[in-house]
Amino acid sequence: MAIRFDIEPEIAALAERTREFVRDVVIPVELEIKGSLHDARDAEAVRARLQAAARAAGLLAPHVGERWGGRGLDVRGQAIVFEAAGYSLLGPLALNISAPDEGNMHLLERVATPTQQEQFLAPLAAGRVRSCFAMTEPPPGAGSDPRALATTATRVAGGWRIDGTKWFITGARGADFAIVMARTSGAPGDRGGATMFLVAGDNPGMHIVRDLDTLDHGLFAGHSEVYFNECIVGDDAVLGEVDRGFEYAQVRLAPARLTHCMRWLGLARRAHDLALGHVTRREGFGSKLAELGMIQQQLADNEIDLAASRALIHHTAWVLDTHGGDPGTASSIAKTFVSEAVGRIADRAMQMAGAVGTSGDLLLSRYWREMRPFRIYDGPNETHRWSIAKRSVAAFKKRDGA
Amino acid sequence: MAIRFDIEPEIAALAERTREFVRDVVIPVELEIKGSLHDARDAEAVRARLQAAARAAGLLAPHVGERWGGRGLDVRGQAIVFEAAGYSLLGPLALNISAPDEGNMHLLERVATPTQQEQFLAPLAAGRVRSCFAMTEPPPGAGSDPRALATTATRVAGGWRIDGTKWFITGARGADFAIVMARTSGAPGDRGGATMFLVAGDNPGMHIVRDLDTLDHGLFAGHSEVYFNECIVGDDAVLGEVDRGFEYAQVRLAPARLTHCMRWLGLARRAHDLALGHVTRREGFGSKLAELGMIQQQLADNEIDLAASRALIHHTAWVLDTHGGDPGTASSIAKTFVSEAVGRIADRAMQMAGAVGTSGDLLLSRYWREMRPFRIYDGPNETHRWSIAKRSVAAFKKRDGA
Amino acid sequence: MAIRFDIEPEIAALAERTREFVRDVVIPVELEIKGSLHDARDAEAVRARLQAAARAAGLLAPHVGERWGGRGLDVRGQAIVFEAAGYSLLGPLALNISAPDEGNMHLLERVATPTQQEQFLAPLAAGRVRSCFAMTEPPPGAGSDPRALATTATRVAGGWRIDGTKWFITGARGADFAIVMARTSGAPGDRGGATMFLVAGDNPGMHIVRDLDTLDHGLFAGHSEVYFNECIVGDDAVLGEVDRGFEYAQVRLAPARLTHCMRWLGLARRAHDLALGHVTRREGFGSKLAELGMIQQQLADNEIDLAASRALIHHTAWVLDTHGGDPGTASSIAKTFVSEAVGRIADRAMQMAGAVGTSGDLLLSRYWREMRPFRIYDGPNETHRWSIAKRSVAAFKKRDGA
Amino acid sequence: MAIRFDIEPEIAALAERTREFVRDVVIPVELEIKGSLHDARDAEAVRARLQAAARAAGLLAPHVGERWGGRGLDVRGQAIVFEAAGYSLLGPLALNISAPDEGNMHLLERVATPTQQEQFLAPLAAGRVRSCFAMTEPPPGAGSDPRALATTATRVAGGWRIDGTKWFITGARGADFAIVMARTSGAPGDRGGATMFLVAGDNPGMHIVRDLDTLDHGLFAGHSEVYFNECIVGDDAVLGEVDRGFEYAQVRLAPARLTHCMRWLGLARRAHDLALGHVTRREGFGSKLAELGMIQQQLADNEIDLAASRALIHHTAWVLDTHGGDPGTASSIAKTFVSEAVGRIADRAMQMAGAVGTSGDLLLSRYWREMRPFRIYDGPNETHRWSIAKRSVAAFKKRDGA
Repeated sequence: MAIRFDIEPEIAALAERTREFVRDVVIPVELEIKGSLHDARDAEAVRARLQAAARAAGLLAPHVGERWGGRGLDVRGQAIVFEAAGYSLLGPLALNISAPDEGNMHLLERVATPTQQEQFLAPLAAGRVRSCFAMTEPPPGAGSDPRALATTATRVAGGWRIDGTKWFITGARGADFAIVMARTSGAPGDRGGATMFLVAGDNPGMHIVRDLDTLDHGLFAGHSEVYFNECIVGDDAVLGEVDRGFEYAQVRLAPARLTHCMRWLGLARRAHDLALGHVTRREGFGSKLAELGMIQQQLADNEIDLAASRALIHHTAWVLDTHGGDPGTASSIAKTFVSEAVGRIADRAMQMAGAVGTSGDLLLSRYWREMRPFRIYDGPNETHRWSIAKRSVAAFKKRDGA
Repeated sequence: MAIRFDIEPEIAALAERTREFVRDVVIPVELEIKGSLHDARDAEAVRARLQAAARAAGLLAPHVGERWGGRGLDVRGQAIVFEAAGYSLLGPLALNISAPDEGNMHLLERVATPTQQEQFLAPLAAGRVRSCFAMTEPPPGAGSDPRALATTATRVAGGWRIDGTKWFITGARGADFAIVMARTSGAPGDRGGATMFLVAGDNPGMHIVRDLDTLDHGLFAGHSEVYFNECIVGDDAVLGEVDRGFEYAQVRLAPARLTHCMRWLGLARRAHDLALGHVTRREGFGSKLAELGMIQQQLADNEIDLAASRALIHHTAWVLDTHGGDPGTASSIAKTFVSEAVGRIADRAMQMAGAVGTSGDLLLSRYWREMRPFRIYDGPNETHRWSIAKRSVAAFKKRDGA
Repeated sequence: MAIRFDIEPEIAALAERTREFVRDVVIPVELEIKGSLHDARDAEAVRARLQAAARAAGLLAPHVGERWGGRGLDVRGQAIVFEAAGYSLLGPLALNISAPDEGNMHLLERVATPTQQEQFLAPLAAGRVRSCFAMTEPPPGAGSDPRALATTATRVAGGWRIDGTKWFITGARGADFAIVMARTSGAPGDRGGATMFLVAGDNPGMHIVRDLDTLDHGLFAGHSEVYFNECIVGDDAVLGEVDRGFEYAQVRLAPARLTHCMRWLGLARRAHDLALGHVTRREGFGSKLAELGMIQQQLADNEIDLAASRALIHHTAWVLDTHGGDPGTASSIAKTFVSEAVGRIADRAMQMAGAVGTSGDLLLSRYWREMRPFRIYDGPNETHRWSIAKRSVAAFKKRDGA
Repeated sequence: MAIRFDIEPEIAALAERTREFVRDVVIPVELEIKGSLHDARDAEAVRARLQAAARAAGLLAPHVGERWGGRGLDVRGQAIVFEAAGYSLLGPLALNISAPDEGNMHLLERVATPTQQEQFLAPLAAGRVRSCFAMTEPPPGAGSDPRALATTATRVAGGWRIDGTKWFITGARGADFAIVMARTSGAPGDRGGATMFLVAGDNPGMHIVRDLDTLDHGLFAGHSEVYFNECIVGDDAVLGEVDRGFEYAQVRLAPARLTHCMRWLGLARRAHDLALGHVTRREGFGSKLAELGMIQQQLADNEIDLAASRALIHHTAWVLDTHGGDPGTASSIAKTFVSEAVGRIADRAMQMAGAVGTSGDLLLSRYWREMRPFRIYDGPNETHRWSIAKRSVAAFKKRDGA
């Protein structure tokens, strides 16, 4: 019992196999389709092809329990394997550990009934279907302040009627089902009274209004605006218990924001390697770029940001594994630091690569675009900082008063 | 005679009319086509439409001499008017003052023969044609180090034969002519021996190999790779004198990098205003976003970056106007500072706007993408910093030895 | 009439003579006493010696009117000359243009009666006496929020009785007189009702409680806590009109914060030169430090910060000269940017100079310490940012509503 | 076996007792003498008093083996306890774990002969004497590039003669002995041929030339310039083996740079708490400062920097404990990040505390000064970045070639 950063042999082996799979199978696909990475038309075919390969390699959905075909990785195990998968933008898709499906599996494993698990979790974990998580709303609804939740679920005979608008719903188009957050008591501004519902993608009351043309493409699936209009679901659609939705959201969010950190850390490492490839091959002013001091400074700053990000992720993973969640602000700190660090890494990598780094010839500009919104989603960093400061003050007052 | 920041009434009036034109004519078009800003198919129609309106408003090409339909604005006058035009991404296109045409007109006005001016400058200034500037080459050719120039122009009977590859040639597709930099003496690594040639876009020896899928879209026109293969031009295609190309490049580059600063400053101001629009309308945590301290800090930092950028641009414009060019590093300092400042402004604006700021619903993410490469083109900021440091040391040694 | 950065010949000549004076007279003294710069015991002798030399050179108090022995420099003229003087930490002291005396002269010239001017301004401008400005109070009194003013002035027969505590009063020890801000109507929290009083340093109701051991040493004079206890002054001690003190404070503060910028800019330039001296002489890893990329980056960033600071100062000086004060936020923007920029410059200079830079062998660590509090005094930068943001929002709403 | 951040109960208990000791015994002394913290005259008395208290509390020198009165803490144990001790500037002095003694004990425990250990380590660990480490030389000697070592040790009958100058030798004045690095073969610029010698403080060939007036005060002891002139020592003065001095320097430096991180992390936490004390008590603009967004941002950034620093320190401690030193760049990364992070924390803390934060009333300005040189000593961060970049490139080439 002491501070340790050892990795269990079986996790190390799994990560090594993941790295090989990403290198040998995923990256070739990424390079092949890089010009159309933002083209959703081919997405399903690519996903099916990659997930089939991952399934064959025994790498699919390692985070879910063995019962669902995975390995029941704890958060620390995920930290190792997800970073390895994240080394390609398509790696998490291939392993079926990308957002929002990964977080939804996590939630379903913890909160859903056995029947719901068979119906929704089983096919999701197996990569047979996709899902989405419908919480965020256009103003004045639930954004960075979840209490503003405006979508309602009203009791009807034998079930509920959901009404409201959601947006920035990643992967909604093509999703087999949605987990929908709706208000079942109280009014916008109240904290209480939200419930989660499982809504089939073909429910006639659920409409995809449009796709948002966002900076990132959520690994093809894109982000949509979804309109629920007299969307009727049965009582069996309630996920967990009525009025406990905000609580379940926390169950989902703290680990979900950390798995984002893990995957983006992998991609930041890739961006750094792409820059290394450039600066070790290109010359300028009579020497290799890698030997110029201003380049070395950027390389070093990347290594420092990578190391600090990884250390914070591993620490937070340990907190989540051993404290039954995040009783403090570890995941807020990790999210804030890592979302900014990976942005800096991608930015430096692109700068080091010069003109070609801004082009489709390298993947750097794509990575840089994909990472940027992470400073906003999963809670804007301003909100996390506000929360961290509040806790800091509260903890100080407690210490100080003692 | 003293430090003054007054604007002459006629310049102020022109800027005001430009602002109104951008607000009433250009921005509506920008909003209308924002979803397809990266779609080159409609570019020519949009350009024609906007430039016709600018021509009607008497605003076209104000930087060229009256003989060419402009107003012969000096660099300070450009600083005022170009910033006003830059307030929309399409404003400079509308006024025919966007890169690379604006810099090419500047160069042709100073270096071309009367015949060449009639043939090339007149239609370019009138917006009847577009042009490109073909200097940058793929490695190991001319990139941030121009001495690496590898494209050659060889004497043939009655003219020259140009051979070589260029890339990141903005606006090459559809250009009526190119100004091409080629080596006429010496070898790669030498400083001397470059010549500029005027090459018609339909010259059978000039081939557009492909379009680069870049982060920015150069106001629709995009950046292409261009291959010159036994491209034959006459003696009258020589721009200025043989072997003085590097010198002319400096004539073009110092003001060109400053006009980039002016236009991007205008767009940074727009990004700031878009953020202001968001934070003054949206609420969060019980008050308007604009009343939250972390938002106020970002607003203030934007104002500071805008003010410092503008002051540096105005100072450099005065240097260029009154010192016959840039005898020191004023334009390097302005370029380095402004390219980073506008990037920070766009980044903060997007952050303040939250999720919607990363979407096509606002133009912020587009602006953020368009601005980023400016830290690389017109000389990577690392190269400018190296040059600034060298001059700083040289000036110190001179002072110190005195 | 256009943007110009010309300097009038007579100002340029005065600045050149100031530079020579600083180089030949002031810096030798600074180097001689550098080990005891924080030792107030010798301060008066040093001040007398330096000011005598400046007087002989015709350089004393160039900002006051000719009637008071100066040259009536406008703010732009001050920008040129004060930067030149600031090149040594002792330069402003030598020229009698250091805080708080310089700001007090400015205020007395504008607001005092002829009799008060003869009594207070004349000897102050001549360097025969020193003064202080007593506004800041310990909590919960007037700090960054002046409305909290708690010191009171109560009507008594033939005059006023001042009671209250002030702290961080620069130069209080040894001051011949103080300008004291006291509440004459309203209550703490109100904006209105302050009056300024001229209080002789030997008034038996004014007590120096202690000297604060601050990071900076205010050019020897230090900062004290001052207690006013039944401090009786006559009606002729009122500076300007009763109840207009907050208004006069603004008359003093906007230019005073800019003259701070000017002087610190001069010292930042000196710090940069000290670093240049180090890196051009010292070797490391086989070459001169000045040839290493990471050093070059710091040199360039210093040049950029110097240029941007100067451009903002010159712009703000023009605003103050031509708009009858600062109707907007130019001086807040300049103060915020410059206070942070000079800190960065001094920090980089010290870093470049390595271990010796942190020692008394160079003056860098002293400069770094002296500059730091400028991010706090004359309004903490947070307060200026808040004010800039408020104005930004107000201006946007006006534009947006039009 | 997995990633863990648990702390063994006995370490946790020791850290808790250390925290109590710092709070109850050390901080009262620090507050009592804060006005004279830079006054070396009282230093020995304070040291003796504090170390007596620590000895009585069983807290003295916990890092050395039990044989020397300590607890043989491994590096991870040190990370916990040293951070706790660092919560006061005097805590490490009290526990006898401050530089350079702590690093010297580490070195003597690993390299000295039993006889040398009895003579030098025993009294040092017991706090009966102090020591210094004489490696750094004025230019052109050993600075950030150790190969420049110019001090020589020449064979004489029965021993060695040491000649040369050292500076920035922390604690030299009053040291009972010095560990001196001198060249025994090769020439400046060579890597090889250095030897370490144990030199008694009263050796007539060792002279303290002067004390350097540095920004930090090395916990009273100060930094001196030391001149070795025909300094004769016996063969038994050789520490370890002849010509292996550079190797031993590494044995000392990697952990020494990490223990600096640990102690400064403790002090950064204290600075943060002092700021918390200020902002939770002071009001401004109608609310507690702690409720203003710009303050909350600084509080949050402090918490993030603290967390990231701690995670990197813990990771590096684990590397050092389990890999027999630092085979990579973990300690360079930790040193670079932490030295900058603690500087940011102290700077923000001072800013949040406003004027009073720059004064001796709080200890913040003192802490800020003490921390700054850590970006320079133990290798300037530029040198570490250069080293990190070199390793990054080498590792990439190996990966890439595989």
